Amino acid sequence: MFNNVLIVGCGLIGSSILKSSIKNKISKNIYVYEKLKKNIKIIRKINKRIKFIPNLNKDLEMMNFIIICAPMSEYKFIFPKINKFMSEDSVITEVGSTKRNLIKFTKNKNLILSHPIAGSEVSGPKFGSKDLFNKKWCILINKGKKSKINTVKKFWKKLGSNVILMNAKEHDKIFAITSHLPHLIAYNLIKTAQDYQKVEKKNIIKYSAGGLRDFSRTAASNEIMWRDIFFSNKDNMINSINKFIKNLNLIKKKIKANKDKELKKILTNSKKVRKQIIDWKQDVSKPDFGREI
Amino acid sequence: MFNNVLIVGCGLIGSSILKSSIKNKISKNIYVYEKLKKNIKIIRKINKRIKFIPNLNKDLEMMNFIIICAPMSEYKFIFPKINKFMSEDSVITEVGSTKRNLIKFTKNKNLILSHPIAGSEVSGPKFGSKDLFNKKWCILINKGKKSKINTVKKFWKKLGSNVILMNAKEHDKIFAITSHLPHLIAYNLIKTAQDYQKVEKKNIIKYSAGGLRDFSRTAASNEIMWRDIFFSNKDNMINSINKFIKNLNLIKKKIKANKDKELKKILTNSKKVRKQIIDWKQDVSKPDFGREI
Repeated sequence: MFNNVLIVGCGLIGSSILKSSIKNKISKNIYVYEKLKKNIKIIRKINKRIKFIPNLNKDLEMMNFIIICAPMSEYKFIFPKINKFMSEDSVITEVGSTKRNLIKFTKNKNLILSHPIAGSEVSGPKFGSKDLFNKKWCILINKGKKSKINTVKKFWKKLGSNVILMNAKEHDKIFAITSHLPHLIAYNLIKTAQDYQKVEKKNIIKYSAGGLRDFSRTAASNEIMWRDIFFSNKDNMINSINKFIKNLNLIKKKIKANKDKELKKILTNSKKVRKQIIDWKQDVSKPDFGREI
Repeated sequence: MFNNVLIVGCGLIGSSILKSSIKNKISKNIYVYEKLKKNIKIIRKINKRIKFIPNLNKDLEMMNFIIICAPMSEYKFIFPKINKFMSEDSVITEVGSTKRNLIKFTKNKNLILSHPIAGSEVSGPKFGSKDLFNKKWCILINKGKKSKINTVKKFWKKLGSNVILMNAKEHDKIFAITSHLPHLIAYNLIKTAQDYQKVEKKNIIKYSAGGLRDFSRTAASNEIMWRDIFFSNKDNMINSINKFIKNLNLIKKKIKANKDKELKKILTNSKKVRKQIIDWKQDVSKPDFGREI
C-alpha cells in the first residue's frame, strides 16, 4: 500500500498498528519514532525490519503515511515539526479519542483525523496486539481532502476495522456517553471505595469480586490519556456528568421513598440495552462469571 | 454430609448449589422446591436423582439442611412455612446479598445467614455452574448456634468457597461499596445513555465498545434481586450514593478549572486499586481487549 510508513509514539495503540501493519503488509518499510528507551527495546523484538528515527526532522520527507499515536497533549509539540518536514503528498492521521480539539491541526491539509474504538486497561508496546482493530469501529472525521480521507479509510480497512465517517462535534458527543463518561465513572467509583477504606480502616478490596472488580479494570487505564480526554471534551463531560447526577438523585429518591415498582421499571429498562449491545456485536452473550483465577 | 438437602428456589444460585452439591457429594438425596414450571423442566435434566417437592409443608420434616435461594422479598412467605414444619435439629441457611434486614428471621434458631460472593449478569437454572463458588468468598454472619454455624461453614467449604465470618452491620457496609453501589452505578449509567439516545435520536449503543459495554453487562443483572438489595440496604446505599456524588462533583470541578495535576493525581490513585485486586486474587492481570466476537 505504501513505501514508507511512520508511527509516531509506540504505546499500546502504536504497537498494535505496527503489528497489524506488518501482518497486513501495509508498507515496504515501517519506521517508528519513540522517545522511551524501554519501549524501543520491546519494539525491536517485534520484527528486525522495523526502523527507528531518532528525531522528527528531515527523515519525515520520505514518509508516505504518518500515524500519530502519542498522547493528545503532545500534539502541540509534534505538529510544528511534522508541518515543517513532511512531504506535500503524504497522508497523516492520528488516533486521539476526542476530535473538536484537534480540528485546529487540520490546517495541515494532509491530516485526516481517525479514532479507532479499541483499547484495553493496559498500556505500552508490551501489550500491542495485531488483532486489536479487527472487526472494531474506526471513526473518521469528514474534514479534509476526499482523496486523503480515502487513503486513511483504506488503511483502517486493511487493519480489519469497520470505518464510518462523522463530524467532530457529533463524534465528541457520542463518545462522551459511550466511552468518556464510563471511564470517569469508573475512576470515581474506585476513588469512593478508596475513601471508604481509609475512613473505616477495613480491607474492602479483598471482597471486590461482587462488582468493584470490573470497575477497577476500567479505572486502571492510562491516566495521561484519560486526563487529556476529559479536558479535551470538557463541555460534553460536564453536561453528561450533570445528567448522570440528576439520574442518580432520581434513583436515590426512589430508594428512599420505597418506590418499589418505579425502581424496578428503571432497572428493567436499563437491562434492555444489553440485548442491543449484543445485537450490534459490541459484545457476546456468553455469561461472565469472572475470569479464571 | 447429609441425608436430605432441600434447595428452595432454583435460579442461577440455587441451580449452581445443586450442581456443586452433586459434584461434591453433599447429600444422599437432594430435593428442590421451585415454583416456575420452565425452571423445573431445566432442572430435571441436570440429574435424574433430583426430587421435587410441590409445597413447603410436612416434607420439610425430613430435611437435614435447607438452603433458601429465593429473592429476599419472598422470605416473608417462606419462613412462616419453614418455621412451622422444619425438624428441630435441621440447619437452615440462605444466600441473600444483604444481612441486617434478615436478622429478624434468625428468631428461627436453626437459621444461619450466608452470602456467597458469586454471580453473573445472567439469571435462571439454565446458567447454573458447578464451579460458581470455587475459590470465591462466602460470608457467614456470626449470629446463631456455634454448631450450626460450623455445619454451614463445612457446607460452603465443600463447595470450594473461602468462608469468613462477620457481623451483619459490617457485611452490609462493605458490600454496599464493593457490590451494591457498582451495580446501581451501572444501571444509572445505562439509563443516562438511554436518555441521551432518546433526546438526540442517535444510535450510540452501536459504538458501545469504548466502555459502555462492560457497564451494560452489570446492568443486565436480575432486576428483582437488585431492587430487593437496594431497598434492604437503604441507609448504606444512600450514604454511598452521596459520597459518590460528592466525589463526582469534585472531579467535575477539576475538569472545569483545568486542574491538570490534581486530576491526574486522582486518576493515578484510582489506578492503584487494580493491583490490590489482583494481589487479592479477585481478578487476573491478563489484559482485556473485549471478548472475541
